[in-house]
Amino acid sequence: MIATGVIVEYNPFHNGHLYHIQQARKKTAANIVIAVMSGHFLQRGEPALLNKWQRTRMALSNGADIVVELPYPFATGQAKDFAFGGISLLQALNCSSVCFGSEEGELSSFKTTYNALKAHEEEIQTTIRLSTKNGSSYPQALNNAYQIISKKYNLSLLDLSQPNNILGYHYYEQIQKHQFDIQACTIQRIAAGYHELINAETQTIASATGIRKALFETHNLASIEGFMPPASFEILKEHKNYANWENLYPLLRYTLLRTIPQQLTAYVDITEGIEFLFHKAAKQAETFAQFMQIVKSKRYTWTRIQRMLTHIFMGYTKQQQQEVSMPSYIRILGMTSDGQKYLSENKKKLKLPLISRVGKTTDPLLALDIRATDLYMLATGGGEPGLDFKTPPIRL
Amino acid sequence: MIATGVIVEYNPFHNGHLYHIQQARKKTAANIVIAVMSGHFLQRGEPALLNKWQRTRMALSNGADIVVELPYPFATGQAKDFAFGGISLLQALNCSSVCFGSEEGELSSFKTTYNALKAHEEEIQTTIRLSTKNGSSYPQALNNAYQIISKKYNLSLLDLSQPNNILGYHYYEQIQKHQFDIQACTIQRIAAGYHELINAETQTIASATGIRKALFETHNLASIEGFMPPASFEILKEHKNYANWENLYPLLRYTLLRTIPQQLTAYVDITEGIEFLFHKAAKQAETFAQFMQIVKSKRYTWTRIQRMLTHIFMGYTKQQQQEVSMPSYIRILGMTSDGQKYLSENKKKLKLPLISRVGKTTDPLLALDIRATDLYMLATGGGEPGLDFKTPPIRL
Repeated sequence: MIATGVIVEYNPFHNGHLYHIQQARKKTAANIVIAVMSGHFLQRGEPALLNKWQRTRMALSNGADIVVELPYPFATGQAKDFAFGGISLLQALNCSSVCFGSEEGELSSFKTTYNALKAHEEEIQTTIRLSTKNGSSYPQALNNAYQIISKKYNLSLLDLSQPNNILGYHYYEQIQKHQFDIQACTIQRIAAGYHELINAETQTIASATGIRKALFETHNLASIEGFMPPASFEILKEHKNYANWENLYPLLRYTLLRTIPQQLTAYVDITEGIEFLFHKAAKQAETFAQFMQIVKSKRYTWTRIQRMLTHIFMGYTKQQQQEVSMPSYIRILGMTSDGQKYLSENKKKLKLPLISRVGKTTDPLLALDIRATDLYMLATGGGEPGLDFKTPPIRL
Repeated sequence: MIATGVIVEYNPFHNGHLYHIQQARKKTAANIVIAVMSGHFLQRGEPALLNKWQRTRMALSNGADIVVELPYPFATGQAKDFAFGGISLLQALNCSSVCFGSEEGELSSFKTTYNALKAHEEEIQTTIRLSTKNGSSYPQALNNAYQIISKKYNLSLLDLSQPNNILGYHYYEQIQKHQFDIQACTIQRIAAGYHELINAETQTIASATGIRKALFETHNLASIEGFMPPASFEILKEHKNYANWENLYPLLRYTLLRTIPQQLTAYVDITEGIEFLFHKAAKQAETFAQFMQIVKSKRYTWTRIQRMLTHIFMGYTKQQQQEVSMPSYIRILGMTSDGQKYLSENKKKLKLPLISRVGKTTDPLLALDIRATDLYMLATGGGEPGLDFKTPPIRL
């Protein structure tokens, strides 16, 4: 059996994701699609709309055969860590390829860009340092450096202002850098851009961001129905308590007020004095929206701030980070019968231990995922602590 | 003007407290009664029923002229630290005496006991070590040692199984140990024992513990009325959201689940492996009552466990504790016009800076009291953070 992999959040699963899985299967002639999916906290530094088992069910109902969890440090890390975690797990699962959506759509562009950037690495780093010194955010500075190199050497590079191109670039880079034995494959994204709003009359594919916006702002489930596969929409409809930062804010606020600003620097990504701003904002802001109004700045992207807050919420310290630098297990969240067949066949060839039932553990990485579930559940009223021990893999 | 001092919690202010103030004034011929009162967290390791300004109003309405705050580390410390903080502040305020209630009622017994225990200190320590090794709690072991010494040397010692005698003993001891220039004075407690329930037909004095029990268990305010001065009862009636550990538990639980057990030992009083029990109990217990059922043991008194939990709730670390070993200011919570006159007269003789309005501060002790207010308010829904900056002293 041939397996291809996708690295996903499914927040929530929509028509674009369905297309992605179908194309991945087709392009790679795979029998099996394995989704490495983030758990309860996501790359933009926010809680998932629905819990990981609900999102696993969405994935299995729509073409994925196996869903494994991308552990917390990778799921909430920078693009390169996110990519490293995801590819490592697919490699450990013996996937022959990884398929990612991109605005670009042609793998050759990723190759050209990777080689060019490697060749001019030093020049790029200097340009980035200069831009960030002048107040640009890191992504802005990076993009700026690319533009300069592209012009100077007359190269046709990837448009790295596009979010899926960036992520794709990092997948490609990680494969090269660690010499992973896995083929990259990209699928042209169709229709909705990342941040686009839904226009139900002209599109049937909308971005997950657009869908979440519609859920929280217009509270109109019906307006979303056309953009999601029926099986996914049913699950969304069934679970009405969609989690967001406002649910977490009372606990985050308590933690910020309970901690001396200086102590906040113990948490991952907290640097450069932002801890004082966080402390001050927690005193004033009664909601997360108010909090972000106070702390947002040109210096930090919204995502970067949210990631810092996620790490504080989670109590994820720099010290803990050092113990969890690579995936140490394959945590099965769910599988179809085909998925199970694949796992049985590959049992002895898997490069990491398989966990389908969580028992007592001393693995600090697994402990983090258990903690993420517990705190997510506490904050959102979604269930009691310990669900990771009690929930068997979803079977479909 | 002559001032006498009392060290109190007023949780809530009842007829016994009124009697205490009246007797203190009479016995010492004082013009002024100064109450050093705990803030939002108390010596038994629990939040105060009403906030510190509400309790200040109770005190001023019933004979106290000045109310100053006993800072968090002393208010929630062991008896000796509680006593040290209280006496230090009264001394700084130029009180000529401190009056405390006791079951004993005669100061000479405190003197005799202090001298006897000092003379046989080594023997007592050995006996205590032996008892705690055999599984006794520290208070039990202490009391046991006293009994042995008392018999052996035929001494008539204080009954140190009585809670107010113990506290009184510590006041006396701190005065001697630090050679404070302040007279001890004790007032015989009448009627209700510390833990007694209210019996409205036979008594008009009930213990604060008894009153709180009636408030939380029978929810019958009327049954309490007879045991409180009218001005105090009115304030109790007015503020219906009485705080208790159940209010704090969701935040405590979140913190326990967010923290690796080993990290909990950073907090004051956490030792000997109880951190693992706390972590486990937080996973299971949905209420504070359930939590205490799981963690209570013969080894630790209920109070000691609650104190540890208070420190975790507050984020009060052993490192912070080292910075706040003695009172560094006199924080005025409220005063009558007589009280104000006394402070004006004594302005230049006060031994610590007077704070009536809290501004920006770098004093770590004051920062703790501000934090205690913020977290108490967040947990009980009592108000927004920063009330310490916004609330002027209560004037009556």
